[in-house]
Amino acid sequence: MTQKFKGIIPPMLTPLLSNWKIDNDGVKKLVDHMIDGGVHGIFILGTTGESTSLSYQTRRALIEQTAKHVNNRIPLLVGITDTSLEESLNLTSLAFDVGAAAVVAAPPYYFHLGQEELSEYYWDLAERSKLPIFLYNFPAMTKISMTVETAVRLSEHPNIIGLKDSSADIEYFHALKEALNRENFALFAGPEEILAETVMMGASGGVNGGANLFPKLYVKMYEAAKATDFETIKILQKQILEIASLLYTVGKYNSSYMKGIKGTASLLGLCKNYMAPPLKPFLQKEMIEISNRLERIQSNLKNMPL
Amino acid sequence: MTQKFKGIIPPMLTPLLSNWKIDNDGVKKLVDHMIDGGVHGIFILGTTGESTSLSYQTRRALIEQTAKHVNNRIPLLVGITDTSLEESLNLTSLAFDVGAAAVVAAPPYYFHLGQEELSEYYWDLAERSKLPIFLYNFPAMTKISMTVETAVRLSEHPNIIGLKDSSADIEYFHALKEALNRENFALFAGPEEILAETVMMGASGGVNGGANLFPKLYVKMYEAAKATDFETIKILQKQILEIASLLYTVGKYNSSYMKGIKGTASLLGLCKNYMAPPLKPFLQKEMIEISNRLERIQSNLKNMPL
Amino acid sequence: MTQKFKGIIPPMLTPLLSNWKIDNDGVKKLVDHMIDGGVHGIFILGTTGESTSLSYQTRRALIEQTAKHVNNRIPLLVGITDTSLEESLNLTSLAFDVGAAAVVAAPPYYFHLGQEELSEYYWDLAERSKLPIFLYNFPAMTKISMTVETAVRLSEHPNIIGLKDSSADIEYFHALKEALNRENFALFAGPEEILAETVMMGASGGVNGGANLFPKLYVKMYEAAKATDFETIKILQKQILEIASLLYTVGKYNSSYMKGIKGTASLLGLCKNYMAPPLKPFLQKEMIEISNRLERIQSNLKNMPL
Amino acid sequence: MTQKFKGIIPPMLTPLLSNWKIDNDGVKKLVDHMIDGGVHGIFILGTTGESTSLSYQTRRALIEQTAKHVNNRIPLLVGITDTSLEESLNLTSLAFDVGAAAVVAAPPYYFHLGQEELSEYYWDLAERSKLPIFLYNFPAMTKISMTVETAVRLSEHPNIIGLKDSSADIEYFHALKEALNRENFALFAGPEEILAETVMMGASGGVNGGANLFPKLYVKMYEAAKATDFETIKILQKQILEIASLLYTVGKYNSSYMKGIKGTASLLGLCKNYMAPPLKPFLQKEMIEISNRLERIQSNLKNMPL
Repeated sequence: MTQKFKGIIPPMLTPLLSNWKIDNDGVKKLVDHMIDGGVHGIFILGTTGESTSLSYQTRRALIEQTAKHVNNRIPLLVGITDTSLEESLNLTSLAFDVGAAAVVAAPPYYFHLGQEELSEYYWDLAERSKLPIFLYNFPAMTKISMTVETAVRLSEHPNIIGLKDSSADIEYFHALKEALNRENFALFAGPEEILAETVMMGASGGVNGGANLFPKLYVKMYEAAKATDFETIKILQKQILEIASLLYTVGKYNSSYMKGIKGTASLLGLCKNYMAPPLKPFLQKEMIEISNRLERIQSNLKNMPL
Repeated sequence: MTQKFKGIIPPMLTPLLSNWKIDNDGVKKLVDHMIDGGVHGIFILGTTGESTSLSYQTRRALIEQTAKHVNNRIPLLVGITDTSLEESLNLTSLAFDVGAAAVVAAPPYYFHLGQEELSEYYWDLAERSKLPIFLYNFPAMTKISMTVETAVRLSEHPNIIGLKDSSADIEYFHALKEALNRENFALFAGPEEILAETVMMGASGGVNGGANLFPKLYVKMYEAAKATDFETIKILQKQILEIASLLYTVGKYNSSYMKGIKGTASLLGLCKNYMAPPLKPFLQKEMIEISNRLERIQSNLKNMPL
Repeated sequence: MTQKFKGIIPPMLTPLLSNWKIDNDGVKKLVDHMIDGGVHGIFILGTTGESTSLSYQTRRALIEQTAKHVNNRIPLLVGITDTSLEESLNLTSLAFDVGAAAVVAAPPYYFHLGQEELSEYYWDLAERSKLPIFLYNFPAMTKISMTVETAVRLSEHPNIIGLKDSSADIEYFHALKEALNRENFALFAGPEEILAETVMMGASGGVNGGANLFPKLYVKMYEAAKATDFETIKILQKQILEIASLLYTVGKYNSSYMKGIKGTASLLGLCKNYMAPPLKPFLQKEMIEISNRLERIQSNLKNMPL
Repeated sequence: MTQKFKGIIPPMLTPLLSNWKIDNDGVKKLVDHMIDGGVHGIFILGTTGESTSLSYQTRRALIEQTAKHVNNRIPLLVGITDTSLEESLNLTSLAFDVGAAAVVAAPPYYFHLGQEELSEYYWDLAERSKLPIFLYNFPAMTKISMTVETAVRLSEHPNIIGLKDSSADIEYFHALKEALNRENFALFAGPEEILAETVMMGASGGVNGGANLFPKLYVKMYEAAKATDFETIKILQKQILEIASLLYTVGKYNSSYMKGIKGTASLLGLCKNYMAPPLKPFLQKEMIEISNRLERIQSNLKNMPL
């Protein structure tokens, strides 16, 4: 069953209008762009999708419109991360109704939880969810790192089918990989810089923000890693690192990635450059910088074996 | 105008039923208990009120029912803390409609914000809010500490009328106090252990969780501190410290305070012992411990000059 | 016995020459300045004294020269904080030989210790030390916060006679105060902003960096707090806050306090403006700023009841 | 010149006697064991070597005895990490005198430094050092993460020839790799779980604690990674992960790695099971567990292609 959860599953940007409502045209363009690029699934309402900044009405609209446009061409995963279990379950119901393949849940991120509390929370969620669940470890945001022991215990619930790790802690990822080494459990790493190495070491794929922009590049990297085609990996890795070092580093604060990826998507015509508060889109000065850097990347991409 | 925001303003527990809906009887009992105890205001939907664990439907129900029962006897403050500005504004509108006196907003707590981003967020909120706003600094939960500079800048907006600091960082509090020393700006400290000293040093009052349980004790302490009545302060301080060291320390993890205060309130007959996930109420073993400790405190309270 | 450890015990700056050797003239001037100001003890080789930046030869020289000049006029406390127990014991022996009254030890600060490890470490130290020991809690520097339980356990060793808390966590300080409430155990808080309130609440005194510069101010505040003379407290508190907000905030990074206090001392003629790496003294631009601010403070100090 | 810094350079355990003096027999056995296993260099006085827990006398003895026994068979690197620049320079002089190839310095770890302060510190060190310097990034211990920009700036000093990263942050490592991509700059990752992948991606080698115990395993992995021999890598990786998950996880606190590796070395007859405070060696109960786990590993190692 979980075989369908593999490969490149981009955490989709949320195309917004100036009033923070869903830009339906943007959704269509972005979905088609990624499917044309060969991605293996789409994950909406993750961190990259500004999920927590959106009202529930907006989240519901995005779920409905994306599902309609994906139209079962590839699996759709829906982020239900919330501080309220009730609201997470409400979103899960809707995801089920529109035919999503799975939901993805990071820990509730307001209170500081202990491992047992975290474990009970996920178990309750799994008991009540109509869809299979991906765990989502992102300690920088949620203030808790799911231990390997907790992940192993949770993986025993039939409704918990995978884990996405965005900790960027590679020791942890290897420990998870060793402990959760089973056919039917999918393991994904977030940071795109380690897509190749984690897939070579046995990960199911990557949930890479950059695949909103350049889906073919990440899909090709996934295939090269599966084939341990080292010549191709080296060439593509250089390119993937360049994207991170150029497009995700403009501006200050921790929001450079979020603002950079949306700004770039707008330059590529995939969506408009609006963001929901508390994050604000780059203004002209930063957008000129992004534009110059994007030009350089696009020029290099022409020489890639995509 | 802000003179009404002073004294003891307890962060009200949210009385829940087993299905996580509002326990309206509990709301009435708790509100009356605190007003009978002399508190100067009531703050709903704060951290102690499990705000972020409640669905929006439940939050709305609480706002409506509490406002109805308080019935303008004392000022009502409503927590609107959220990761989505839109949802915060929705709650603000309702708070305005039911006659609340002000809203209280901690920073959005998912993304790591910078000070400028934080400042812009609050300014936007203040521009759009129909009610005056209290800033709420709680870095342990929100991953950002509002600098003194940011607080000073924000205090210049006419719609921003006060700040509640739950950082427990006393150096910070004193720096705030010095920088925001104005007639019309209210400053409250969260931790009840420092109620007396912060009020003596010029704070407007305290937002103390323990005042759900023993409102008279905190009201008396506020009065003693205003009068620099040191004999009384010493006696009451011992009692307040004992409450913290006995009732907020059972169990493990960081939730001891949350579970202890709700469990105690249930023993006092003020509400039922239900909590919204991800937190779970104490079970029998811990409740027996709480019960024993409460007995000790009640026995001591009899000798207090309340 | 511990009655001698009370009042204002400044953490002495280490007067250095350009080659990072001890400036013996500076030591004499600084010691006399503080004793003339009425301080109740002197604590060398603390954080403010740049202890960890000094070579052992230099630390030894400072111990010898300070002891000689203090000449038992007031108690001398010697910081022995180190990552190596052997080196801490070496310093303790020297402190004993020169007639110091006690040693002060923060936890070893390289490895992340657990509470049991910390407890065993201090117990070993106490067993081997020829001098009574002050515990020193400073989690920002040592990466571990001594729990109240650990402090209570350690306080049972006859050689452990006090605790200095620089956590600035007032809830923690109150919990310590309640748990360690004994005649023969001395409790000091670091941040000078809370000197008055902690002494009023029962602390033994303050270990305040600013008392290097203006010893009379802090001594007077200690006396006012002991007498709960609120009128005087209010006046002096304003001054103490101003010193912190003006002199400890120039420059960037976390070293503003360290650089500001040494720069100010040099302007007051108490020592030269040299610091041991990795910290570097302020250069001309920042020193002009410090000088301007110092002038303002000195002008205000003239109106203080000192 | 830096070509000699490549391959497996174990951070050597420090063999101690019960009085915390150097166990010279242990030094000889451990050095020979590693050189027989094919390691490409030896790094003494790192974190694994308990450097900061040793007195200076002991550190000096270790430098002298190790240099004498290595006798230039392979390059010797000496850790000079300290909070005092003077003491670091003292150790550097000795390292130079005994013929060491380079020194390794983590940032001073008491004060919270800024990037500029860090940069100036290293530049000063490089100016004064008689030996080439490896930077050592270990934010968990030193409370500062050297930014890529700082590393690039420092790499321009002719005396700074490499960097060891123990952050376990793989995004950071890739960013470093991209920015420092030069012939004459050596880059090593600490965590052994990523030895293979970092070498495949261009790292110079690994500084792996486990190579104290099983040097052949890590040397073989290095060679397999250089040859991108994926079949061998997969087999060895499983073994390396098993060592980490079995031998570095007994006990509690963060010292499991330190205590586990020394305990295992004692079981292998490489040194005695003494540690310098504040860390204490495992007692019987934990040693039985380590012994059982070691047996399992040794049995598996027999089937490895070493």
